[in-house]
Amino acid sequence: MRLGDNELEGISTLIQVYTGNGKGKTTAALGLAIRAAGAGLKVYIGQFLKGKKCSEHNALKKVKNIKIEQFGKICFIKKNISQKDLKSAKTGLAVIKRIITKKEYDVIILDEINVALKLNLLDLDEVIRVINDAPQDIELVLTGRDIAGKILKLADLVSEIKEIKHYFKKGVNARRGIEY
Amino acid sequence: MRLGDNELEGISTLIQVYTGNGKGKTTAALGLAIRAAGAGLKVYIGQFLKGKKCSEHNALKKVKNIKIEQFGKICFIKKNISQKDLKSAKTGLAVIKRIITKKEYDVIILDEINVALKLNLLDLDEVIRVINDAPQDIELVLTGRDIAGKILKLADLVSEIKEIKHYFKKGVNARRGIEY
Repeated sequence: MRLGDNELEGISTLIQVYTGNGKGKTTAALGLAIRAAGAGLKVYIGQFLKGKKCSEHNALKKVKNIKIEQFGKICFIKKNISQKDLKSAKTGLAVIKRIITKKEYDVIILDEINVALKLNLLDLDEVIRVINDAPQDIELVLTGRDIAGKILKLADLVSEIKEIKHYFKKGVNARRGIEY
Repeated sequence: MRLGDNELEGISTLIQVYTGNGKGKTTAALGLAIRAAGAGLKVYIGQFLKGKKCSEHNALKKVKNIKIEQFGKICFIKKNISQKDLKSAKTGLAVIKRIITKKEYDVIILDEINVALKLNLLDLDEVIRVINDAPQDIELVLTGRDIAGKILKLADLVSEIKEIKHYFKKGVNARRGIEY
């Protein structure tokens, strides 16, 4: 569905960012995807760095109006990621650029793009050009820790998810269905 | 599916909290629900204060392993909520108490329970008893701004979602599919 019967119409592209060191950035974007899809909006999720095996994919493929693609090899973001995802990330940005231009989706989520930028897998100025060239009525959602200053400046909504407590520090490992 | 083939087994009840004044608390919990359901875990979402018309319900009803119920009248949390949800909130807590005891679900989300507590729709000590009486291997997820100190102390993971920028301040209204 293209826009028309909802309040997005006439609003210029809005950019939401979920950043910070706490748990909840990708899940906040996934929840937004579910909410938007439930309202009849078309949602595209492009995941940088991540590979094929995250649990959410099994559930999301049942939901109408959501398409999800991945441009990486890992599933759960850890420190010390290698540069082997460089080519995948560049492919991802090219795909997203095409998707944004074609206006087939109302909400476009660029999951972990902040991390891909931080790791220099993507060029910041190129990403900013893609964002600035986006047509009206698209909601862009960017996630990942270490948001670049230029993205922060550009964004309309920024939520910083701060870790106040985390069970990893008590020795609980990342768990399927909860962390990935 | 009950636990058995995943890493939750043997871990005592873990309590996650998403709080703070920023956008993304409920959506983080919804995204976690999708991820958990995709991993075959059974998820129950009980929403305090909220009523029947949120967009996410349309999409979630298509997802296997997720049950969602509401114990309130509104859809999007605003300031100055009246006390008319008192009875619904108490019903909600009774339902959740039964559900936790029966161990039918692996992940139980108590959406906006922090706000229900802040508004004195629920008794804090009673909620803490329900949490403390929860059997092992259940993941409890509590959302809402204004987390009570006693809940903070009890929690294993707390993410504070801070508003750094919000488009509401630029005059953008709450939109179907994005905020509710």
